[in-house]
Amino acid sequence: MLVSPRNPLNIGAVARAMANFGLCRLRVVAPYAPPWRSARSAVGAPQLLEKALETSNLGEAVAACTLVVGTGDLTYRKPEQAIVPLPELAALVGRELERGGRIALVFGSEKHGLTRDDLSHCHCLAVIPTSPDQPSMNLGQAAAVCLYELAARANSQDSPLPGGKPLRRQPAADGPPCDSGHLDILAGLIEETMLGAGYSPRGMQPANRYDLRLFLRRMAPNAEDTRRMLGLFRRVLWRLQHPQAPRR
Amino acid sequence: MLVSPRNPLNIGAVARAMANFGLCRLRVVAPYAPPWRSARSAVGAPQLLEKALETSNLGEAVAACTLVVGTGDLTYRKPEQAIVPLPELAALVGRELERGGRIALVFGSEKHGLTRDDLSHCHCLAVIPTSPDQPSMNLGQAAAVCLYELAARANSQDSPLPGGKPLRRQPAADGPPCDSGHLDILAGLIEETMLGAGYSPRGMQPANRYDLRLFLRRMAPNAEDTRRMLGLFRRVLWRLQHPQAPRR
Repeated sequence: MLVSPRNPLNIGAVARAMANFGLCRLRVVAPYAPPWRSARSAVGAPQLLEKALETSNLGEAVAACTLVVGTGDLTYRKPEQAIVPLPELAALVGRELERGGRIALVFGSEKHGLTRDDLSHCHCLAVIPTSPDQPSMNLGQAAAVCLYELAARANSQDSPLPGGKPLRRQPAADGPPCDSGHLDILAGLIEETMLGAGYSPRGMQPANRYDLRLFLRRMAPNAEDTRRMLGLFRRVLWRLQHPQAPRR
Repeated sequence: MLVSPRNPLNIGAVARAMANFGLCRLRVVAPYAPPWRSARSAVGAPQLLEKALETSNLGEAVAACTLVVGTGDLTYRKPEQAIVPLPELAALVGRELERGGRIALVFGSEKHGLTRDDLSHCHCLAVIPTSPDQPSMNLGQAAAVCLYELAARANSQDSPLPGGKPLRRQPAADGPPCDSGHLDILAGLIEETMLGAGYSPRGMQPANRYDLRLFLRRMAPNAEDTRRMLGLFRRVLWRLQHPQAPRR
């Protein structure tokens, strides 16, 4: 997935790398119209560019995904998510595929990468180990490197997940993972509940929403966990909104 | 090393990937003047582009190297060298660095990749595992993928060299490796010896030269082996050219 790409050559390069590594589902979030038009009409553009889906925001684009991996370097950001060095990503992705999950790999715009808000939709941030003197990679090259790593290693079960801050993921026995769309529904319901309960003033709403997204992704509930929490918060909210309704 | 690159954007992309992964020695072989000039004068070109060395042929460019790795896909070629899937290259490169070797990674022109003649200077061909539907990668992206793989894994000693046709390399105990320049001197001497001995007609010379280069690289003699063979062939050639000289 590309968030607001600006250079048609880079869009084309990402599409080509996807074709090279056998992927076909490209999504573009809030693209700038001229470069997007120009990339799609380029001579020799891979077919997957034609079929790419457009959405206006990242939350919608990743709604069906169970593991959303942001990408970027750490020069200007200190993400609150787990940081996964790219050589360790394949093991994580392999396990997620094994338990029936759907994965999104998200690249920010060439100008500033993923924003703090974009990152709040991500379960973790994959970082390509680059030189401190020149950490920032070209978008098309970064995509090629990430897709190569996943294509070459995601299916090999021998890749361990050594060291580093571990990303907590339920083992496969814990049932199918929860997709981002349901996490967002839950987050929305919790937010309404907070307001309904007078938990915090309306001015705090954006900050709370951001923290909540991160929290839910860090917890990584499975689909069944989420279903239960939804049921709980629906009930709580209804009660808050109908204080006079007779108790069962 | 880039052989006859045609697109200044690709040259720039290769240079950027080198900077990203902390490399600085770029060599360009027989470049087309306009794209080369244009790449070097591009705004924001990394300093290593300015410092890049130009040579007119690949043999000269790799003369000081002990392991020359060609790159490409296998669609239109059946190389005579060992084929090394890129995920296995790091182990090979790691061992070569350990025994004090110098390594060149060679990329062909965008149009047709490395020629058969270029390949005859290579000890092996590294292949990026791509989709059979779209095997050919963009030059800048292929370089980024290769350099990432080497930077991320060449120093980790845990990468094995599983399966596949093994590339024969002497263990470190066998002494320092031989550089390509000395292999070429030896090849030239053997060629003269062949002619001097009437081994084959002059018309066979190009084919023999090609086979000889491949043979020597497959054998991978170390520096001492090569020194001895040079001594032997010098002696043989001198004798062929001076049949009347008194014997010792």
